[in-house]
Amino acid sequence: MDLSKSKLKYIRSLKEKKYRTEFGTFVAEGNKLVTDLLPFIKCQLLIGTHTFLEGLDVSDVEDVIEVTESQLAQASFLQNPQQVLAVFYQPKQPENVNVDSQLTIALDGIQDPGNLGTIIRLADWYGIHNIFCSQDTADVYNPKVVQATMGALARVSVHYTDLSVFLIRNKHLPIYGTLLDGKNMYEQTISENGIIVMGNEGNGIRPEIEKLITQRLYIPNYPLGSSTSESLNVAIATAIICAEFRRRIL
Amino acid sequence: MDLSKSKLKYIRSLKEKKYRTEFGTFVAEGNKLVTDLLPFIKCQLLIGTHTFLEGLDVSDVEDVIEVTESQLAQASFLQNPQQVLAVFYQPKQPENVNVDSQLTIALDGIQDPGNLGTIIRLADWYGIHNIFCSQDTADVYNPKVVQATMGALARVSVHYTDLSVFLIRNKHLPIYGTLLDGKNMYEQTISENGIIVMGNEGNGIRPEIEKLITQRLYIPNYPLGSSTSESLNVAIATAIICAEFRRRIL
Repeated sequence: MDLSKSKLKYIRSLKEKKYRTEFGTFVAEGNKLVTDLLPFIKCQLLIGTHTFLEGLDVSDVEDVIEVTESQLAQASFLQNPQQVLAVFYQPKQPENVNVDSQLTIALDGIQDPGNLGTIIRLADWYGIHNIFCSQDTADVYNPKVVQATMGALARVSVHYTDLSVFLIRNKHLPIYGTLLDGKNMYEQTISENGIIVMGNEGNGIRPEIEKLITQRLYIPNYPLGSSTSESLNVAIATAIICAEFRRRIL
Repeated sequence: MDLSKSKLKYIRSLKEKKYRTEFGTFVAEGNKLVTDLLPFIKCQLLIGTHTFLEGLDVSDVEDVIEVTESQLAQASFLQNPQQVLAVFYQPKQPENVNVDSQLTIALDGIQDPGNLGTIIRLADWYGIHNIFCSQDTADVYNPKVVQATMGALARVSVHYTDLSVFLIRNKHLPIYGTLLDGKNMYEQTISENGIIVMGNEGNGIRPEIEKLITQRLYIPNYPLGSSTSESLNVAIATAIICAEFRRRIL
């Protein structure tokens, strides 16, 4: 089947959140990413080259279109288009997930799509299944976020919610945050479950969220107290904290 | 003084490595970044708003131009220009630095400017003063790299070199690499000095570099051996390793 103008227009519209929300779909590109998501997330439209489609089980895909590489390039959002572009349905996230026995991440206003995607990817690496985001956090279905997740969306649920309400509902759990006046995290007791709150790239954690934090942590620099960079990138800080939480219970 | 067309053209040319190399300069933008670099790196041209320049010591700057925000926007590489854009001279890196007593990072073909900038920033956080890059690693003076370093360029030297030659010259040091068949890093002896090699985003470490690695490490996922994402982003992996090296000797 041919790649019609109306389909091209539909795909391009999914660059914008407004249309992603209206249609309840999102775009993923690249052989590995698409192959990783296909078994887990319902696919509406798969546009692939003959090489990619050969031998692939597409029985669950609603619409499959075989194209040439140059046709694919027309649809692609990437500078270097690969062999496939897919439109997936946004998975419905269950409401009121019980996170009592889990380690969970809460994101307060993360803006950079690369940071959000990288955090989802590392959450997956560390067996963290739920991420709760403030409503003003970047959209998980932004194509740049999707590409940075490297398929972790198949295993990590990303929820958008009022973070204050979420944290108050879970106030029986330890709520961790990294703050400049926190305590050296290597010297603190760390629980197997709980919520790790990470804040906006420039402004950190909002005051109304910060006051709900029960365990104020600090990632020590080296040598301790030296005048190095004042902060770490938020995805980097998230990784160092998650690695330490998991190291303790390995 | 006015922002002449020839200066605008000069600034724009610095988006390209060819011209950055020809002129030996690079661009940095934003109040905090520029203020952080000014005391450490010689500044050729500073274009700032009245608000930014007020009270700032610019006696060492060769050329200072006060502009309006809209004039600055013309010169800026950023989507949201700030109050200042500066052209700095590329610091001359000393040759044959002795890294015997240091922890050092070696980058084998890192392509993404954001990853390189983030690694430089975290190196600074962890008191790592030298990063050695293969010749095909992204250019440290690429504006996207500079912006992601958040001022760490004032304290971290980035060298471009033949990595094999560099590693062979330092083969009396432990040479660490993260490899899928490596050993759980939490169970390995770690030295206070040595070289941590990190590889390209898609292809990892080149075979000729890999064979020079003496300590093959693995960052365990959680739960151990579960089928999570197959890998971590390279800047994330670098951070987790550096954090662990520093934790041991805190």
